[in-house]
Amino acid sequence: MIVAFQGETGAYSEEAAFQFFGSSIQVKPCESVDDVFRAVEEDKTQFGIVPIENSLEGIINRSYDLLLDSNLRICGETELRVVHCLIANLGIRLDSLKRVYSHPQALGQCQVFLRHLNRELIPAYDTAGSVKMIKEKGITDGAAIASARAAEIYGMQILARGIEDHPNNFTRFFILARQDSPPSGNDKTSIVFSIKHRPGALSEFLKTLILRNINVTKIESRPTRQKPWEYNYYLDFEGHHEDKIVHEALESLKKTSLFLKVLGSYPRAK
Amino acid sequence: MIVAFQGETGAYSEEAAFQFFGSSIQVKPCESVDDVFRAVEEDKTQFGIVPIENSLEGIINRSYDLLLDSNLRICGETELRVVHCLIANLGIRLDSLKRVYSHPQALGQCQVFLRHLNRELIPAYDTAGSVKMIKEKGITDGAAIASARAAEIYGMQILARGIEDHPNNFTRFFILARQDSPPSGNDKTSIVFSIKHRPGALSEFLKTLILRNINVTKIESRPTRQKPWEYNYYLDFEGHHEDKIVHEALESLKKTSLFLKVLGSYPRAK
Repeated sequence: MIVAFQGETGAYSEEAAFQFFGSSIQVKPCESVDDVFRAVEEDKTQFGIVPIENSLEGIINRSYDLLLDSNLRICGETELRVVHCLIANLGIRLDSLKRVYSHPQALGQCQVFLRHLNRELIPAYDTAGSVKMIKEKGITDGAAIASARAAEIYGMQILARGIEDHPNNFTRFFILARQDSPPSGNDKTSIVFSIKHRPGALSEFLKTLILRNINVTKIESRPTRQKPWEYNYYLDFEGHHEDKIVHEALESLKKTSLFLKVLGSYPRAK
Repeated sequence: MIVAFQGETGAYSEEAAFQFFGSSIQVKPCESVDDVFRAVEEDKTQFGIVPIENSLEGIINRSYDLLLDSNLRICGETELRVVHCLIANLGIRLDSLKRVYSHPQALGQCQVFLRHLNRELIPAYDTAGSVKMIKEKGITDGAAIASARAAEIYGMQILARGIEDHPNNFTRFFILARQDSPPSGNDKTSIVFSIKHRPGALSEFLKTLILRNINVTKIESRPTRQKPWEYNYYLDFEGHHEDKIVHEALESLKKTSLFLKVLGSYPRAK
């Protein structure tokens, strides 16, 4: 079994893949989230894993946009606790640092620590990738922010651990495949839909779910870009699209929406 | 009557203020959206105007975050059609340009045009501000992207008009004051709330509105940053908070939510 993820070896996405599938899987690093989708679409890997939202920063727009256009299905979800470390080459001391490298989101999540440290911040395309870079270039006046796992993989030193501003730093990932999962008895379903920009349309849509006691767990809206104030709504709710009650609701909703796509049903994350 | 707006004279926000209030008002330029809120809070101006969402790019996060913490009320909304122009000093020709200056969002909204033009893009803090800058510095090899009104105000030349990628480029603005508006018979109300992260909580909340036939027109969610997967939901619906049916719904919702704030009731934009 091969799972495609975005980033270098040691990335949080890779850690999430091991958390979900166990440690015996093979993984395939990809440069972008787009490449993860492509790997699964072109049957190069059986699964892909993509970050979908962070508990502090909100949704990852690109993942949502790709879900809209792709034929892949969400077959699982997992939530990873993000613990950032300050990582340097062996023997380097904190007071010799001039620069800190990492993905802009990781830099943003360690603002308090970095303000005290007061070094130059250099945005990089990846967390684990910046560890790899300072190792390969033998940088002695710079450190990277990434996971403890990344430090271990590249044989580097952890100067500080748990440097994120908020302990509530979780990232939610979707597992992608060409099919979604069979009913497990404790499932969630993700859909995307758009409706006419007219009073009552959104309320009517939600009513169809709510009156059937289908529990909506998340709503996101993104502009369709086609017509002003027409949105693509991304909705998560409890249940599987093969459940009779959910199936009936979706059939009814398809008739009243401009567009509706089931992104997948999958067992709820523990 | 004085209205605070973000940006330099000639900004789209200023244009929206004139569209809403008419041309006889006085306006006060502010450096940031934060400063617009502050001007009204400290009674330096009677009104403020802030962009809240763009029909292509989605919501303006900072405005939403400030609404959450401020005691100001939304007393009106207006929607402005955004038409971008390429603006240069008098006598400058298109083929002598090396650089284009503007707000990153404006640059992003003219991608197709700019790809053909193929010049260096320089992000600036403001659209009209970049027109002012190329005028004051007498720049002969650069142009700015801003409104036709900005070109007129600074006595500049329009090299190209309507260069935005999508004709559906509208920005929605909120008018802020210390009080919201009395019922007009055709109103909308904006609220922000958070609910427990448990199955059914969001459905129950929405049910309270929907079963009273209150029409929800917009839902946005943003992480609370306090607890993972707890969101602040921003909701717009039809009706005024003084309407009996809306008042009853809000009283009931206050009991079941962790937090609920009425941001204001205001006449619906034409």
